[in-house]
Amino acid sequence: MKIAICGVTGAVGKEVLRCIKDLSLQYDTLDCYASANSAGKTIESPLGHFVIRPFSLDACSGYDLIFLCVSGSFSARYAEKLLLNNRYVIDNSSNFRYDDQVPLVIPEINFHTVKNHRLIANPNCTTAILSLPLYPIYQAFGLKRIIVSTYQATSGGGQAAMDELREESLRFLQEDAAGHHHFVHPIPFNLIPAIDTFQPNGYTREEMKVVWETQKIFEDDQIKISATAVRVPTFRAHAESITLETAHPIDMNKVYSLLGTTPGVTLVDDPENHLYPMPITASGNANVEVGRIRKNNVFGENGLDLFICGDQLLKGAALNAVQIAQHLFK
Amino acid sequence: MKIAICGVTGAVGKEVLRCIKDLSLQYDTLDCYASANSAGKTIESPLGHFVIRPFSLDACSGYDLIFLCVSGSFSARYAEKLLLNNRYVIDNSSNFRYDDQVPLVIPEINFHTVKNHRLIANPNCTTAILSLPLYPIYQAFGLKRIIVSTYQATSGGGQAAMDELREESLRFLQEDAAGHHHFVHPIPFNLIPAIDTFQPNGYTREEMKVVWETQKIFEDDQIKISATAVRVPTFRAHAESITLETAHPIDMNKVYSLLGTTPGVTLVDDPENHLYPMPITASGNANVEVGRIRKNNVFGENGLDLFICGDQLLKGAALNAVQIAQHLFK
Repeated sequence: MKIAICGVTGAVGKEVLRCIKDLSLQYDTLDCYASANSAGKTIESPLGHFVIRPFSLDACSGYDLIFLCVSGSFSARYAEKLLLNNRYVIDNSSNFRYDDQVPLVIPEINFHTVKNHRLIANPNCTTAILSLPLYPIYQAFGLKRIIVSTYQATSGGGQAAMDELREESLRFLQEDAAGHHHFVHPIPFNLIPAIDTFQPNGYTREEMKVVWETQKIFEDDQIKISATAVRVPTFRAHAESITLETAHPIDMNKVYSLLGTTPGVTLVDDPENHLYPMPITASGNANVEVGRIRKNNVFGENGLDLFICGDQLLKGAALNAVQIAQHLFK
Repeated sequence: MKIAICGVTGAVGKEVLRCIKDLSLQYDTLDCYASANSAGKTIESPLGHFVIRPFSLDACSGYDLIFLCVSGSFSARYAEKLLLNNRYVIDNSSNFRYDDQVPLVIPEINFHTVKNHRLIANPNCTTAILSLPLYPIYQAFGLKRIIVSTYQATSGGGQAAMDELREESLRFLQEDAAGHHHFVHPIPFNLIPAIDTFQPNGYTREEMKVVWETQKIFEDDQIKISATAVRVPTFRAHAESITLETAHPIDMNKVYSLLGTTPGVTLVDDPENHLYPMPITASGNANVEVGRIRKNNVFGENGLDLFICGDQLLKGAALNAVQIAQHLFK
């Protein structure tokens, strides 16, 4: 099998290399592409060293699988052209996610939607992390309403955003003033309740992605969803506070047994021993942590609250993409 | 007028001194008390220097007003005894908040409940910050459900917690490892979704305070409230993501005009210009910032979402206490 990664120098591209190693995805050839700026440089990874190739449609040809870890505008320009001379393209950008003709895939939930498609969209990080633990609840009890407030790590903005958190936090602690370049406001010791552009309905695009993508992945556009997306000063794990109204009364024992046995989900719910999902424990881990599980005060027998945390670069991006590849070539 | 502050060396006690100055609360005598450890030391404040007195019931006597900025157990032991030889006691702890015989007061909302009471409870920070912008919405449209996820600053844990965030963040950036002492887990670049002790219903006491106190302040125990309280690595402003279901259909123009004219509330809601509530703008300010106002996707014509941010030590504590005093002696 011949694999290419386009955009290997970004935060997600680097993690794709690591996930190929961690999931033992077999390949004969693995080539790494990036912009002309990075071409010729060497990238180190758990799979060894790779000399970065300059991307062009002609060069990036003849692969069984291409991971596109690039911007939405790059995907818009090249993804479909790449299908002419390559077999599968897994696109990590948001460009094709809302296209009815392109499957949006979380392998544990809806791999069946791939069918004969060769261009596959990888979901938004917040949605991927949310969908995994909510899907078994949806199957067991139905879902009428999802209300989610996010605590999103800087990794969602790429490597430069993570570097800015680190550098500007240090500057704040030493000089009592933090600058900003990637973010619109300083991020150290701050919260920014605005991610991506604003829509006419007052929600941000990041918030609407959760609505559009969850409905598409669950294949149910009747679920009502309200999201508030907030950037917080953490590095690479997104957390989400979730309030649910189910269609049918909740059986708490069943909730625990479902979440305790869902692949990709780890139950971390032992408050007596101070165990609940947190970025410092979820970072670097494949699984999404779920905890703070309780019947809620607002939806009677149909109300459930939980708190989740998952690595934004793994299940939120690279890991899910490599899992899709694993299923394609199983 | 003779005033005493008990617990003047804590984060809230210090802010009471600043608020007395900022609100020009008039006094003839102002005495500062703390534990024997601090007695004899001098505290500097915007009102000048004070030599700290050691607290005892005998010494702390003959005042028109005592601000208790101490622990709940200290309040439990001394608050009612202090009423024997002093006129008013404003207690900042949670000890008397749920006592039907003690008014829980946000002056803008329910000062009328003070009547002939001499012991007055100051609300929990999260509740005070939430109640101020929600009360006009409650009056105009009614409130059936409040769903709130918090982003709570370290100041809620006192000066030691703020110092820990600063010191351990620096240690993390320089040595790649953060310790913890005040918090159960490291707080730098992390989130801790657990504040105060856990209740049998799976909520924390901090979360239930929002339920109990909002219902008491609004004098309406029919409002359904679910809160998730999360500690975040910020210094002194709490943020809250709020989803509402009102009893009557929402008129957005009225919402903006109400929140734009509510004393103590500043409308910060201009996404085009990157203006929304944030800790770095709300910290040190008396007013609670309100923004991200939008009809929500989950409660039809009766759904409203907003994001708020307020200084935990000001409206969330010291400022509200001094405002109560201002009303008592108006």
